[in-house]
Amino acid sequence: MAMRYLTARLAQQIDEELMSASGAFSIDQLMELAGLACAQTLATVYNREKYPRVLVCCGPGNQGGDGLVAARHLGMFGYKPTVYLPKPGSKDIYKRLATQCQNMSIPILTPSQATDVSPLKQALSQSDVILDAIFGFSFHPPVRAPFDAVLPLVTQSKLPIVSVDIPSGWDVEKGDEFGVGLQPDVLVSLTAPKLGVKSFKGRHFLGGRFIPKALDEKFGLNLPEYPGFSQIVELPSEGESQKL
Amino acid sequence: MAMRYLTARLAQQIDEELMSASGAFSIDQLMELAGLACAQTLATVYNREKYPRVLVCCGPGNQGGDGLVAARHLGMFGYKPTVYLPKPGSKDIYKRLATQCQNMSIPILTPSQATDVSPLKQALSQSDVILDAIFGFSFHPPVRAPFDAVLPLVTQSKLPIVSVDIPSGWDVEKGDEFGVGLQPDVLVSLTAPKLGVKSFKGRHFLGGRFIPKALDEKFGLNLPEYPGFSQIVELPSEGESQKL
Repeated sequence: MAMRYLTARLAQQIDEELMSASGAFSIDQLMELAGLACAQTLATVYNREKYPRVLVCCGPGNQGGDGLVAARHLGMFGYKPTVYLPKPGSKDIYKRLATQCQNMSIPILTPSQATDVSPLKQALSQSDVILDAIFGFSFHPPVRAPFDAVLPLVTQSKLPIVSVDIPSGWDVEKGDEFGVGLQPDVLVSLTAPKLGVKSFKGRHFLGGRFIPKALDEKFGLNLPEYPGFSQIVELPSEGESQKL
Repeated sequence: MAMRYLTARLAQQIDEELMSASGAFSIDQLMELAGLACAQTLATVYNREKYPRVLVCCGPGNQGGDGLVAARHLGMFGYKPTVYLPKPGSKDIYKRLATQCQNMSIPILTPSQATDVSPLKQALSQSDVILDAIFGFSFHPPVRAPFDAVLPLVTQSKLPIVSVDIPSGWDVEKGDEFGVGLQPDVLVSLTAPKLGVKSFKGRHFLGGRFIPKALDEKFGLNLPEYPGFSQIVELPSEGESQKL
């Protein structure tokens, strides 16, 4: 049975079910495990000796929260992360996660004017790899300010990119239909991959090892088996999975 | 510089600082990472082919919460955990963590009468390894009911034991001074080891990779370096560490 690629609506529904009274998860728990999986994916592909400086670009929502968690873990792993927050989130958990990064002496760049991209330009010139945690599965095109200025600069940097869940700018179900999205080298899907990344050609990992078997069966996810006690599993490349 | 062994008071102080407004961690986050470290430690030493049935014994406090998180992750790793709660905790997070185990179809044994040890006896006879998450660093001797009946039965089972933070029944600072505590084969210390386990002779791991460098320095912890992106690090055995 093939793994299921999720619509935006189904991804939302699974999240809600996990955090409902019966699912009993808190967002703190899920974000911690998701962000850890993102950090481990980046560390699996880009070693800290050659790629120590990670620019973690975060949006204002839960995806940005995953990025903040990942930044902290990357700091713990010995990387030199910098967090870029063109539009900081307003939720309490988001602020706490940002404080946790500050307590780790991780620089946080928040442009004084949202349209000022000079801090981003400078940060890109001093980075080895990008972690893209800008937009998640609740993104709806088009890309709005200030992110319409951010995405082209990230692309122009030619740095390797690890995207979280859905490459920023891509439609969650239709992919990069307008050609304005980032083109990551590595993707880490959370919980289950989304429809829009079905033809993604780079290295593709899955994280979010917290879906109970019953939920997997209820939604027919057919999640792959994770190895040992890892929090991530690499998915077969598009060509290989078609052979399966 | 040698790693610092903590008094109960200092362990408490570090926990409070992590969860203060300035530390900004929620208990959900810390418990998730602590429990994950416990599950990974058990999985490192006792593989799931030979030791699939894990009896996770939980106390009513935060240590028991770590155990519930560990039980869930062990289920995710392919083990067959059973949770034993002689005295279930009353905090909201404790109840949510127990629900998360139930959603994974992990059996939870809660004796109808706290002094009834027959469910424990039966569970021990059907287990391959014990995860001891009964008492943590806030334990003060003596061992009270119903745990005074639980500890001898666990010992008599002769099953391998992995203890969390402080083997149950041991004084946090003086160790097993009364000879009533469990004698684990493996210990996973959380954040930093406690004074009472300084002479522990089995395999000793450290988990809780979330202490910012500044906090490490403030308290002179001299935490060891964790390998790669692991959530645990094995500490040198007592003999080896004396040579360092």
